[in-house]
Amino acid sequence: MTAIAAISRNEAGIKTVCGVLAQRFGDRFSTSASICMHHGHTTTWIANQPPDAVISPRETEEVAAIVSACSDHAVPVIPYGTGTSLEGQVNAPGGGICIDFSEMNRILAVNEDDLDCIVEPGVTRKALNVHLRDSGLFFPIDPGADASLGGMASTRASGTNAVRYGTMKDNVLALEAVMPDGQIISTGNRASKSSAGYDLTRLLIGAEGTLGVITRLTLKLHGIPEAIASASCCFPSIDDACQAVIATKQYGLPVARIELLDHLTVKAVNAYSKLALPETPLLLLEFHGSNDSVAEQSTDFGEIAEELGGERFIWTSNDEERNRLWQARHDVYWATLRLRPGATVFVTDICVPISRLAESVRAAQDKATETKLLAPIVGHAGDGNFHLSLLVDENDAEEIRRADEFVGWLNELAISMDGTCTGEHGIGQGKMAYLERELGAATRYMASIKSAIDPLNILNPGKILQF
Amino acid sequence: MTAIAAISRNEAGIKTVCGVLAQRFGDRFSTSASICMHHGHTTTWIANQPPDAVISPRETEEVAAIVSACSDHAVPVIPYGTGTSLEGQVNAPGGGICIDFSEMNRILAVNEDDLDCIVEPGVTRKALNVHLRDSGLFFPIDPGADASLGGMASTRASGTNAVRYGTMKDNVLALEAVMPDGQIISTGNRASKSSAGYDLTRLLIGAEGTLGVITRLTLKLHGIPEAIASASCCFPSIDDACQAVIATKQYGLPVARIELLDHLTVKAVNAYSKLALPETPLLLLEFHGSNDSVAEQSTDFGEIAEELGGERFIWTSNDEERNRLWQARHDVYWATLRLRPGATVFVTDICVPISRLAESVRAAQDKATETKLLAPIVGHAGDGNFHLSLLVDENDAEEIRRADEFVGWLNELAISMDGTCTGEHGIGQGKMAYLERELGAATRYMASIKSAIDPLNILNPGKILQF
Repeated sequence: MTAIAAISRNEAGIKTVCGVLAQRFGDRFSTSASICMHHGHTTTWIANQPPDAVISPRETEEVAAIVSACSDHAVPVIPYGTGTSLEGQVNAPGGGICIDFSEMNRILAVNEDDLDCIVEPGVTRKALNVHLRDSGLFFPIDPGADASLGGMASTRASGTNAVRYGTMKDNVLALEAVMPDGQIISTGNRASKSSAGYDLTRLLIGAEGTLGVITRLTLKLHGIPEAIASASCCFPSIDDACQAVIATKQYGLPVARIELLDHLTVKAVNAYSKLALPETPLLLLEFHGSNDSVAEQSTDFGEIAEELGGERFIWTSNDEERNRLWQARHDVYWATLRLRPGATVFVTDICVPISRLAESVRAAQDKATETKLLAPIVGHAGDGNFHLSLLVDENDAEEIRRADEFVGWLNELAISMDGTCTGEHGIGQGKMAYLERELGAATRYMASIKSAIDPLNILNPGKILQF
Repeated sequence: MTAIAAISRNEAGIKTVCGVLAQRFGDRFSTSASICMHHGHTTTWIANQPPDAVISPRETEEVAAIVSACSDHAVPVIPYGTGTSLEGQVNAPGGGICIDFSEMNRILAVNEDDLDCIVEPGVTRKALNVHLRDSGLFFPIDPGADASLGGMASTRASGTNAVRYGTMKDNVLALEAVMPDGQIISTGNRASKSSAGYDLTRLLIGAEGTLGVITRLTLKLHGIPEAIASASCCFPSIDDACQAVIATKQYGLPVARIELLDHLTVKAVNAYSKLALPETPLLLLEFHGSNDSVAEQSTDFGEIAEELGGERFIWTSNDEERNRLWQARHDVYWATLRLRPGATVFVTDICVPISRLAESVRAAQDKATETKLLAPIVGHAGDGNFHLSLLVDENDAEEIRRADEFVGWLNELAISMDGTCTGEHGIGQGKMAYLERELGAATRYMASIKSAIDPLNILNPGKILQF
């Protein structure tokens, strides 16, 4: 795995803070090597960088106490949700204290009339939806992993149904956070919109824990639709599939999901799940609404797809059949792994204007062929966002080098197309160089903000911005 | 009118900068008293505070030159769109240079496949929609006034159809801005979502020109719906009307507009437009979708309304009849003025969780009666946001005092209900005290950000935050 240089360690400060916090938190404070290793490395290609201790607070005031102690001694603080981030967001390059939010997992309020709820950051999206089941409401953001809501906010997560429901930035009404000096703040309230001052809510969303530690979230909820329909359609080429996506959006069809699988991914899924899909690009869709509305949306999409060369169009609102249609998508991760047994998967994501989606996917496929890398592609096509999974042999340094180069090339491609080096995974340690390439002088003002709010650089140091 | 204390003037700096800029901008630079007065006071209850000069740049580089000159001499810069803000956002309490964006009004690109466009800040929302007419696309945010898009972004504007399409924060993909040191930055690109670094786009939206001067906007567009239906329904009480709004949202009906008029507003409109609506609370709605879908939505709403005491429910998708139904809403401003000829209207807005909307509207009505003020109410009910228009005699100091007190009381009410002192008008000079009350310690971090980015406090000083 690629190693990222460690940042300098404040040994004396760490020792002092560990002493203070061990006393306060008892068995909720751990310096066990295995626990620290478990928290220093997640589903990422960046090598493990464990913290010095892991603490599981149960209240905001406890988080404030941890941050205050770390602030007093200039010791790093790394917030940790479920460890499913992909760009090294929870690594501890300068050591320090990891705050594990697994014990702050209470759902504090569900306001059915207002379609909102208040949760602690350790609540996972699936746990929230289980809790909401009887209310007729749901929380839509689905990044795949059963991530914590605090972590999802911190990385500005989205996923398959962002095309309809938006990303975390669109579904968080307000946050409570502990700032680097230990101060607890609320960035907003339960009003569904506000023009009151700077948007600190959106500033903390996507800040990856570098500006404040999120301790509470007020989230927007949505009514569970009366009906859900799913559809799938094969296309002769990536270009035809992408044209169908564009036409669908222009037509104003309120698709809830519109996912693109390239031929290699379809091939992987066929092998893994014993399916017999044509090994061509595939679109998978979901429609939410009334019974009549989802039928109308499905039919309308079918007509659009047919005009653009779509084949084997199927739609259904039967739950069992829906699951079968989406089987291909659900199995992608495991199916991809089987394409090259023993390989490690390096996942990366970019997002481009949808008019450039086909061109960027084709270019990535060509580049993979040229550089002899296996790189199946799955995209949230409605957003112009796609994931590319590089299947590499971790023990082959030369192959790792090619994979690194490939990721660099892909990020540059996105930037050259007026897109972004990350649609939903975040910058972490993995994409710091590309952030600078993408936003240039704007990153200077990000650095000014970071320095103003966290002058000691204690909150998740070594992420997003170089210091 | 209420006067707000001026901030100290940098006479020497202003004189020098005026000399430099007069030479560069020729007849696009003006110190004419009438022009300066015109730019120092808008549709607001705050007394005029003119700038020392008004300049109309035509290019971003010219804006950068103005800001650089002002930065060199610590002179205030006040961006000006159409002057339709409501809380003193364009006043110049310390004098300085007003940048009038009326000549930066080009639509630079419309990307139909990507449903986005790039515009200069002086383009108004109506001008954009006229330009888009043949593309099948539209820009939905409608704050009432034909405001400039730069101004709308700066105040985080929304309006009648935010319930479906969101606010400016949801419809701006990226901004170009001139920062206080004269640096030009881009905060993003044309990707429909991004997790790349701090969300500077959302930080500048709603910053009212205090952190950067917006010189270009990349906006999301939406497909013009195939059909539009309108509906109206009378309710015996504010509570019944608000219950219908809540039920409609819970049901998941994707209403495009859902407006509440209180009985006093209906009375005003009846008198002004020779209508004969029952003088009870009224809901006006709009539905967007396919022909079948808007019919279904209208019928569904009719059933919800009927269960909750709604009367005289009507819906139509005929354009002429739709306009007639919405006549009451379109005439509100002029009709309100006629309620008390010669009076001045002080408009204020708050936003509360919709479960508290009925209670807050009733409390405001009671308070108006108690304090002998005429205060008709119109609300963007789907967002829990309402406007209250105080009709006051500008020459009656005691009445002005009561109106001021009323606004203070209303803001406190919103805050006590876990709402905000402004849903869409912004803080400006008018609501600075309430921002502090609403967000407490969070405002300290807003001040840190302001100081870090604009250490000389030259960008629109005296707005949002006290310095």
